[in-house]
Amino acid sequence: MYTALYNHIRKYVAFADADAAALEPYLYKKEVKRKEILLKPGQVCKDHYFVKKGLVRMYLMDEKDTEKITTFAIENWWVTDNDSFITGQPTEYYMQAIEACELIYIKAAERDALFKTVPAYESYTRMIAERALVAYQRRVNFINMMSDEERYRFFVESFPGFLQRVPQYMLASYLGFTPQFMSKIRAKR
Amino acid sequence: MYTALYNHIRKYVAFADADAAALEPYLYKKEVKRKEILLKPGQVCKDHYFVKKGLVRMYLMDEKDTEKITTFAIENWWVTDNDSFITGQPTEYYMQAIEACELIYIKAAERDALFKTVPAYESYTRMIAERALVAYQRRVNFINMMSDEERYRFFVESFPGFLQRVPQYMLASYLGFTPQFMSKIRAKR
Repeated sequence: MYTALYNHIRKYVAFADADAAALEPYLYKKEVKRKEILLKPGQVCKDHYFVKKGLVRMYLMDEKDTEKITTFAIENWWVTDNDSFITGQPTEYYMQAIEACELIYIKAAERDALFKTVPAYESYTRMIAERALVAYQRRVNFINMMSDEERYRFFVESFPGFLQRVPQYMLASYLGFTPQFMSKIRAKR
Repeated sequence: MYTALYNHIRKYVAFADADAAALEPYLYKKEVKRKEILLKPGQVCKDHYFVKKGLVRMYLMDEKDTEKITTFAIENWWVTDNDSFITGQPTEYYMQAIEACELIYIKAAERDALFKTVPAYESYTRMIAERALVAYQRRVNFINMMSDEERYRFFVESFPGFLQRVPQYMLASYLGFTPQFMSKIRAKR
């Protein structure tokens, strides 16, 4: 049931069957429908989700009620509002399933006990957090340094599977493009 | 000698004198002069620096040779190019001391041995990485959602000590302002 997660953990750390057995009581699963909202502003984000199947996005609403997409997560990615999950403050984000999803998750409230019980899971969590840091750094870099067209090409080359799965207007929001600019850039290719 | 770091670690995890003794062989120190360059593009970032005293910045150079400052680090902050430090790829960044600095650092090559020897240090590293993630998330949010004037106010309120220590043109670079806009906004206050 949790095999996809165990396989992912084993890419990073030594993780015996006994570790998996010790981890299992801390794992939960959730099936969500397409377009279902998993989190909205004002709630505290109490869960950290591992995408077993499907596609999730996170977004903010600006003062003009325009969506700003900050995150996409597909299979084998972890997704949460780190700020709310770690600090316990209410979130400013929406989290929504773009496709029907199967999710595995752990609870913020149980993390300390989990890390104590399965130290290999804490090593894995440290490595996942560091990977996420690298991704964030590349994203800030990408906002700072690339032209719109370079950003589009970088995204398409880095995440080829996304183009087919994500509606065009969502990709435009993530890349900070107007839908008009998005149509123009696609027509060019 | 490493007391500032031990005090910082103890804010996050239980850390006995025996842990400090076990950690010490993995710690190094470096004193750098004002304006000294610690890292430049093409090098691999092999060290993770804890600022004991002083102020460090990281920046990129765009194709017009304009500096884009991405990071400031003052006392009790960790600073590195996470991407290069974690993946071992060459950096695209410059790291430079803005003030004369006393730095404590650990080496990428010794991290695995260090984590094995001092598990409490891995917990601390996990928490620091998660804190850095929260900071990055807030930064992306802040780029996406705030007007220039809101960004300036947010920065001044969040990091009041910086204004006196950082030259105005560097703050303008970090916030993505022209020096002209920066003068105007400061005159307004």
